[in-house]
Amino acid sequence: MYKAGDLRVEEREDPKIIEPTDAIVKLTATCICGSDLWAYRGIEPADHQVMGHEYVGVVEQVGSEVKNIKVGDFVVGSFVISDNTCEICRSGYQSGCVHREFVAQTIGTQAEKARIPYADGTLVPTPSQPAPELIPSLLAASDVLGTGWYAADAAGVGPGKTVAVIGDGAVGLMAVLAAEQLGAQRIIAMSRHPERQELARFYGATDIVAERGDAGVARIKELTGGLGAHSVIEAVGTQQSTMQAIRATRPGGYMGFVGVNYDVTIRGIDLFFAGIHTEGGPAPVRRFLPKLIQLVWDRKIDPGKVFDLVLPLDKVAEGYKAMDERRAIKVLLTL
Amino acid sequence: MYKAGDLRVEEREDPKIIEPTDAIVKLTATCICGSDLWAYRGIEPADHQVMGHEYVGVVEQVGSEVKNIKVGDFVVGSFVISDNTCEICRSGYQSGCVHREFVAQTIGTQAEKARIPYADGTLVPTPSQPAPELIPSLLAASDVLGTGWYAADAAGVGPGKTVAVIGDGAVGLMAVLAAEQLGAQRIIAMSRHPERQELARFYGATDIVAERGDAGVARIKELTGGLGAHSVIEAVGTQQSTMQAIRATRPGGYMGFVGVNYDVTIRGIDLFFAGIHTEGGPAPVRRFLPKLIQLVWDRKIDPGKVFDLVLPLDKVAEGYKAMDERRAIKVLLTL
Repeated sequence: MYKAGDLRVEEREDPKIIEPTDAIVKLTATCICGSDLWAYRGIEPADHQVMGHEYVGVVEQVGSEVKNIKVGDFVVGSFVISDNTCEICRSGYQSGCVHREFVAQTIGTQAEKARIPYADGTLVPTPSQPAPELIPSLLAASDVLGTGWYAADAAGVGPGKTVAVIGDGAVGLMAVLAAEQLGAQRIIAMSRHPERQELARFYGATDIVAERGDAGVARIKELTGGLGAHSVIEAVGTQQSTMQAIRATRPGGYMGFVGVNYDVTIRGIDLFFAGIHTEGGPAPVRRFLPKLIQLVWDRKIDPGKVFDLVLPLDKVAEGYKAMDERRAIKVLLTL
Repeated sequence: MYKAGDLRVEEREDPKIIEPTDAIVKLTATCICGSDLWAYRGIEPADHQVMGHEYVGVVEQVGSEVKNIKVGDFVVGSFVISDNTCEICRSGYQSGCVHREFVAQTIGTQAEKARIPYADGTLVPTPSQPAPELIPSLLAASDVLGTGWYAADAAGVGPGKTVAVIGDGAVGLMAVLAAEQLGAQRIIAMSRHPERQELARFYGATDIVAERGDAGVARIKELTGGLGAHSVIEAVGTQQSTMQAIRATRPGGYMGFVGVNYDVTIRGIDLFFAGIHTEGGPAPVRRFLPKLIQLVWDRKIDPGKVFDLVLPLDKVAEGYKAMDERRAIKVLLTL
């Protein structure tokens, strides 16, 4: 991305092993994330930077210290590099690893190949080479499914819970899928787009709420005996959606937030009198990857349906435009 | 409080049973809370309002529907009225009860007697009439001990954890006591006042940090291998202390906050990249009261030491002044 809105596909030198813990992955597929749009729209700075942080592919080369990943393995990687051995990783928060690095900022996987540092800690191999129809779902696990799953986990979703999901983008839809898998009793998806409402229902939503802001909060309270939801998932990241999430959570309830909150401010007193639990941030996808890969492998979930536009990598600019204009939920890029 | 700084002790009519779920309590002792100072200092409005929300005493009269509390019982009450039967109460968040009422706002227990609504849900009787030396500790359970305990619970304190407590007021000191009782391995008290440091050590602090703000955060990181504390307790409620708490918590760690955050704002992006759990608000003291009363009764804890000035009720103005000027940690008022 040369600057906001200006994307170019260029020939670059092949990545090489630099550290003995690196691996080189030849990508099978990649995609565009909602968070890539922050730079595209000029909300985050962009100056001749590599783009993309979601990836699946075949390992082409490994450094001398890589033990768990072999050349030829098909791998799914997290969008945050982690050693998976430090105290923070072992506690399940690999996105806070002492060696963390954001793939988006320095590596960029909207590309044919990528050098992945800490390959043993970041990549998870699939049981064998996947059937082609599983590729989109495995790719989803790399971020959007992993992030939605984390949001549901952070929001304390479980059997008997009423869950409200704010945001009908890919992450919100994946959070609906996760809530269903985690046994939620009732899943309220907030969406005003008929095709996204339909996908939310496909993934397990039991109720659809089209209202937003205060009206949205009032509707959630109405549906929960005046109390608010046990679990609220914030998957947008605007001021309105964040306050909506805080207010829709019942006292003692849980809000999981994964929207990127660049211009959001929360008044301490609002959080204080809400009396809720919050947890959020860049998702520790690595924690969930083995389980998510298995669910996809066993065809128990179909997160790949979230990709509603497929383009070759050299048409990436078209993909950004489609997502920016909300004509596509999520764009898969083929190689 | 006629207006900020202007406190008067006046004869008022005796409280009467209004609802069949009420009880009238003749207070044995009451006290001044750090949060009372917000109005005293003009940060919160004050216009001829009753003051005080901490109380212990003897039940003088009960309404026709009160079942668990009898005339003559010695009781400890929470600073938030709760029915203790609604879904929110049953989940342990009595301070979010559907019938909640703040004692501070409408009842005021810097008084000889008080009408307590939902007596069955709000008051807890002691096993029998307490020995006089237990009165201060039982009174502490009403808010300051219950709030410190909740903060430690919200911060996920437990065996093996490193806990940082921000704030050396009464609540911060009670959080140190709670952390010790809950089995924390290391308890870092942040204080620059020698006599409060001493009390913190008495209650179980293993380390004292005098630095504040960024320097305080750097010191906590230094003491925790660069990671931050597992559990951080925010018991001040200023912008600086809140940000200090967020930054001192390790990724995936827990921040419990009980400071009243009137002018605090938190940037969403700071909370996002911290990657922590937060929980806070008015403490559900009622959840912890039975256990806290038992610990006091068995002389396993001595929270009453937090009262370092005792005055008769009619000298209440002197008590506020001493706390405002930080000459006293907490003032007990006798009746």
